[in-house]
Amino acid sequence: MLTTKAQTGGNGAGEMRSGTLNAAAFAARLDTVVADMEALLDGLLGAAPLAGERSRPARLLDAMRYASLGGGKRFRPFLAVESAALFGAPRERALMVGAAVELVHCYSLAHDDLPAMDNDDLRRGRPTTHKAFDEATAILAGDALLTLAFDLLARPETHPDAGVRIELVLALARASGLGGMVGGQMIDLAAEGRFAGGEPQRLDRQATETLEAMKTGALLRFSCAGGAILAQADGAARAALDRYGTAIGKAFQVADDLLDAEGDPATVGKATNKDAAAHKATLVSIMGIDGARRALADLVAEAEAALAPFGADGEVLRAAARFVAERSH
Amino acid sequence: MLTTKAQTGGNGAGEMRSGTLNAAAFAARLDTVVADMEALLDGLLGAAPLAGERSRPARLLDAMRYASLGGGKRFRPFLAVESAALFGAPRERALMVGAAVELVHCYSLAHDDLPAMDNDDLRRGRPTTHKAFDEATAILAGDALLTLAFDLLARPETHPDAGVRIELVLALARASGLGGMVGGQMIDLAAEGRFAGGEPQRLDRQATETLEAMKTGALLRFSCAGGAILAQADGAARAALDRYGTAIGKAFQVADDLLDAEGDPATVGKATNKDAAAHKATLVSIMGIDGARRALADLVAEAEAALAPFGADGEVLRAAARFVAERSH
Repeated sequence: MLTTKAQTGGNGAGEMRSGTLNAAAFAARLDTVVADMEALLDGLLGAAPLAGERSRPARLLDAMRYASLGGGKRFRPFLAVESAALFGAPRERALMVGAAVELVHCYSLAHDDLPAMDNDDLRRGRPTTHKAFDEATAILAGDALLTLAFDLLARPETHPDAGVRIELVLALARASGLGGMVGGQMIDLAAEGRFAGGEPQRLDRQATETLEAMKTGALLRFSCAGGAILAQADGAARAALDRYGTAIGKAFQVADDLLDAEGDPATVGKATNKDAAAHKATLVSIMGIDGARRALADLVAEAEAALAPFGADGEVLRAAARFVAERSH
Repeated sequence: MLTTKAQTGGNGAGEMRSGTLNAAAFAARLDTVVADMEALLDGLLGAAPLAGERSRPARLLDAMRYASLGGGKRFRPFLAVESAALFGAPRERALMVGAAVELVHCYSLAHDDLPAMDNDDLRRGRPTTHKAFDEATAILAGDALLTLAFDLLARPETHPDAGVRIELVLALARASGLGGMVGGQMIDLAAEGRFAGGEPQRLDRQATETLEAMKTGALLRFSCAGGAILAQADGAARAALDRYGTAIGKAFQVADDLLDAEGDPATVGKATNKDAAAHKATLVSIMGIDGARRALADLVAEAEAALAPFGADGEVLRAAARFVAERSH
């Protein structure tokens, strides 16, 4: 077993060590991160300018708050917090990493929802940022949220060691940009035949997996890796968490595709059945609903197995993998 | 006089120490940065994925290259390189800082040119990114360029000391985001009355100066500060460079406004007289052409005076201030 906080005197998940975490206990733990994240982002998006800032224009700040507060499962921050907790890293530092990855996630939603992209009017049951404000404001709010993510990681409160902070900056940049999330969105739009002379193309399984590993997987993987970087975990622990992060990233996407194929818009909080309408390749369209359900179960098992080296301390993250699968129902 | 490379055995501007740099010698020096920047960005935007990247989608990479290669005065990288050279910092490190700030500049142009923002079809005499590609691709290319800027600063080749790199990340984030460049663009659009129920409002001189300090000034100031951070310059040297960066930032904007009011679109490479058409407050509209010309001369003198502590070593940056004023003719 790898060295974790249980051996090093840390605390935080001790109550879980004796067995399987039930759904209510898991939900309570997730809710705590939801509340902590709301409070942290609310404070970070205050009106007072910081050193190096001239002023914080009210309309831009309002749009950034709209795009990032008051909603969202905060699943990425949860993964960052629980990954860091495995090693007993201070929770307030893990929340800074969680806030950074959540800001990247929220900026990507504000941009992806734009008319020139996915053209969505509804998100989390509310008007999307460009509907609540306007397109220019949504573009700028996204830009500023992305910039703020790197600002947070660079602050001393994230970690006293600059070497740890810069490793987080580099890892988040790689996960989010050309070769990660933004690249995945580009592949997705191209596959829909959205560009001049383009026809919708049904991607094969491998191409679909690459797209999904970039578009959603990279940021989920970073969330887990970020916790390990923050805690300066050793190579074996990082590798185990990376296997977990990869599996849960894939599981998350399959669950999302199942939700789109089968979910009710009122419950889901956004339009559903859009993938089929766009003739979009997903693992559901490639493997069918039953095949996707089996793949999802395999991915959850893979995620759980990756955490074996952490023993009972891994139970919260194992429960997170089960939670991902359950939200597809 | 502050300690500069002349006393510490550095080199690079020694040939200037004896007097005033003429326009041809200055142009040659600027051209060297233009060529170095083109080569560096070309290499950075190659097709091979780096560690942590899954793949680099061709269309996104093409758009990022289109938005950042083959044009531009590279004035921000020039300021970073020459500021760092004052202290004898290695040129290849200064070019990394210059590349980061140039990528932020290029992303901001790609986003500002969008139909939802300034709706420009022409930039540097070529179609803007969304005209050459499409809106979605221009948005994503901008997002990925911004992300890449922080990626570059986080790399060990920018500086072996993680503390220096993280200071650069934080300073660039503050200059570029909510309280800097993006915030300035928000104020600018709001002043044009672009939002629901908004009327164009003629900003007063102070509000116009705040807008310009954020929209264009912050990134120019960072370019100078970045060179000083990279060189780990002392407080007095940083303060002097910051006074210079502030003055040259203002001068740059006044020159730009004069160019818009008086320039020929064929020479300028983009539409002109747009400010007056948009009833936009600029220092030109507030002070008139002659007043703006006098203010520009004062700012150049201020920039030159700020460099006094560097003695003859400051001549290249003094010439840069004169260059800024001259491009307004």
